[in-house]
Amino acid sequence: MDKLKKWFAEREASLREDFFQFLRFPSISAEGGPQLTQCANWLCNYLNRCGLPAQIWPTAGAPAVYASYDAGPGRPTLLFYGHYDVQPADPRELWEADPFEPQFRNGYVVARGAQDNKGQCFYVIQALRALLETEGRLPCSIRLLIEGEEEIGSPNLPPLIEAHRAELNANAIAVVDTDMAAAGKPAITVGVRGITSLELELRGSLSDLHSGLFGGLAYNPIRALVEMLGKLHRPSGRVAVPGFYKQIRSLTKRQHALLNWDSDVQAFGGETNLPPLERNWVRPTLEYNGIFGGYAGPGVKTVIPAVAGAKITCRLVPTQEPYAVQMAVAKQLEALCPDGMELTITLGDGGAPAWRTNPDSPLCRLAKQAYEEVFATPCSTLLCGGSIPIVSLLAQELTQEMVLLGVGLPDDGIHAPNERFGWDRFQQGLLSTARLCQLLK
Amino acid sequence: MDKLKKWFAEREASLREDFFQFLRFPSISAEGGPQLTQCANWLCNYLNRCGLPAQIWPTAGAPAVYASYDAGPGRPTLLFYGHYDVQPADPRELWEADPFEPQFRNGYVVARGAQDNKGQCFYVIQALRALLETEGRLPCSIRLLIEGEEEIGSPNLPPLIEAHRAELNANAIAVVDTDMAAAGKPAITVGVRGITSLELELRGSLSDLHSGLFGGLAYNPIRALVEMLGKLHRPSGRVAVPGFYKQIRSLTKRQHALLNWDSDVQAFGGETNLPPLERNWVRPTLEYNGIFGGYAGPGVKTVIPAVAGAKITCRLVPTQEPYAVQMAVAKQLEALCPDGMELTITLGDGGAPAWRTNPDSPLCRLAKQAYEEVFATPCSTLLCGGSIPIVSLLAQELTQEMVLLGVGLPDDGIHAPNERFGWDRFQQGLLSTARLCQLLK
Repeated sequence: MDKLKKWFAEREASLREDFFQFLRFPSISAEGGPQLTQCANWLCNYLNRCGLPAQIWPTAGAPAVYASYDAGPGRPTLLFYGHYDVQPADPRELWEADPFEPQFRNGYVVARGAQDNKGQCFYVIQALRALLETEGRLPCSIRLLIEGEEEIGSPNLPPLIEAHRAELNANAIAVVDTDMAAAGKPAITVGVRGITSLELELRGSLSDLHSGLFGGLAYNPIRALVEMLGKLHRPSGRVAVPGFYKQIRSLTKRQHALLNWDSDVQAFGGETNLPPLERNWVRPTLEYNGIFGGYAGPGVKTVIPAVAGAKITCRLVPTQEPYAVQMAVAKQLEALCPDGMELTITLGDGGAPAWRTNPDSPLCRLAKQAYEEVFATPCSTLLCGGSIPIVSLLAQELTQEMVLLGVGLPDDGIHAPNERFGWDRFQQGLLSTARLCQLLK
Repeated sequence: MDKLKKWFAEREASLREDFFQFLRFPSISAEGGPQLTQCANWLCNYLNRCGLPAQIWPTAGAPAVYASYDAGPGRPTLLFYGHYDVQPADPRELWEADPFEPQFRNGYVVARGAQDNKGQCFYVIQALRALLETEGRLPCSIRLLIEGEEEIGSPNLPPLIEAHRAELNANAIAVVDTDMAAAGKPAITVGVRGITSLELELRGSLSDLHSGLFGGLAYNPIRALVEMLGKLHRPSGRVAVPGFYKQIRSLTKRQHALLNWDSDVQAFGGETNLPPLERNWVRPTLEYNGIFGGYAGPGVKTVIPAVAGAKITCRLVPTQEPYAVQMAVAKQLEALCPDGMELTITLGDGGAPAWRTNPDSPLCRLAKQAYEEVFATPCSTLLCGGSIPIVSLLAQELTQEMVLLGVGLPDDGIHAPNERFGWDRFQQGLLSTARLCQLLK
């Protein structure tokens, strides 16, 4: 460990400059464009320079980056998963600096992707590089899969896994994209919620109408929209969609006991009759991610818009099926749509079921040990309210043990303006990852 | 009349080119900027070239353009009001061509402002020019007031009128900004609805949150917004704001009888238990002009937005007071706002009460006569569901008779993409305006 710490201290500045180069690519998968390929190419070259033989795996969308290192016969193989794509940076005006011009401020790197997932991805790479440069070799065989479409639901990953099943063969999988229990308190994550998405649009007229000349005559689609959406939750926060809670499997007593439910989280949302962590970990949600219609610019525009709509995602728990939930919501929207409104529902592709694993597995135990050594404090076992579609997918496609690791914190502001990542945690993540490789050997 | 028709026919092409120059200014008052002053300067120069001595009247916002012509003692003075500012052109992607590069297609001029109000304003100017060029003089004295802030509620007009009361003195006022009863059927308008506006914003958190990590914990402001707004109308369409209908004065039987209620208008909106035209003419409304919150771009963004909000305007009828209605709506929003949400209400400035005049006045009768001669068909008497704040203002500030004229049609698409104005109506508007001046002499 001391050797690794020394290695880090000696090249901290240049390492951060490398990280900044990675962060400067506006690799927003929701927007597409050449910057995704540019980011992948840079990453591929960088991995090769680090001594991790890498290649580009093209897909129908953004390419993935793959690297492999063979430690020799008898050594176990660990597959790391990460992603180089990021969320859009809207609303841009709330960023204190350009989201793609990283800043180092008060011990934090601030940029879109600083944590999710470029930051967590980059300390894994540096952990492997540190082991290679200090020991001349890695203690176990490594596979790295860094994809470019995680934030849009990894639509092209299933065929990629299908085509590269042999290269991805490993004894264990570590998905490095999750949070700690709290500042200074490491955690492994043994389950994530699933996700399904849909979008609705209501059309009241062929084109926008003057709100005076047509006011009282035209049915305003914003009014129809708010009246429909206003009926999708009960006052208690329970989702008012028939069948929504049908396929839910409760935790067993033993599963419940293994998890760390301690939390000082305050909650105003969700199902107000349940403890906060339960709402987030083991209950599904229906959230509006965006709402639009009419004029949102400065000043007044006296218009009855032609269309209004909203973007919805639902978080799922075992054993809800993404398509079934999508259809249940769509059906309820159709039932709520009033006469005179034309409803168009667009079902999203990026669905994923929830995933949960056994917190007693050997991989989970070694990961906890690595964290406990680096942080010198007990490691918690958590569920995650978020979704990592790749987790569900890997669990379906590859049968190895899997665990979710990461040193994120809730106030890193992932998906939000001024996303940041503590530089201390970059180092701790690096050391824990290297330690896990050593323990696995 | 024949002389005027000949005058128009001989210079139709150059006249349209002049009109296109006027339309090319993106004089959007909601956005402000130098293009408003540029448009006013062009218009001022143009009026002077037409033989109508004009000047710029600066205001705290966009300048107004004023022109006057004195026909000599004993002649009555007619004040024309119009506006050179236009609505924003959003959503731009629905325009078939640049909204500020006018097109002439199938007998229509297509551009933002083609009708409202640059089109109606420009045929008035051409009517006066035609009379000057064919007769060498105008039959009555003329005042022209063409302002640049009508679409944002004419905030700077009251002090302007105060400062120029002498120059604006006239025997009658014609506001040329309204519609015909239907294609081929001219109309005068003897009342408009008033307007008041407000905007609300709900904040649920300091910054955007990840919808997985915080879903079930955070209170989504879009959810709070749709649940609040969903309660502002009853299923019948009646506005569910205490006191909203308190100050309404019904029409007398005689007023009702003078108006043309014939209409084949279909209506899905408004108060469904009332006849369509009643909903539009004599009932107030509460409309959402815009709604916003979260991510509305392409793809999926798994975010719980920090804020969501909406823009609201209410159309008013006699004797509702703009401020009283604004406050009633604001009070109800505050009552509906749930715990955990921070509500900010911004009251709009651009309020105006409704206005109605006597449809038997001499001015109304002459205006109807002018239309009946040009269109060779009876002229209707209408109310208007729209608001022309200047009408209420002129009615308050200047005590002369007033009438609303215009040859707009509902399908001109004012305030909407691909706004257009029939070139045949441009000519008819020109001839009717010239005829009214002749009848007034």
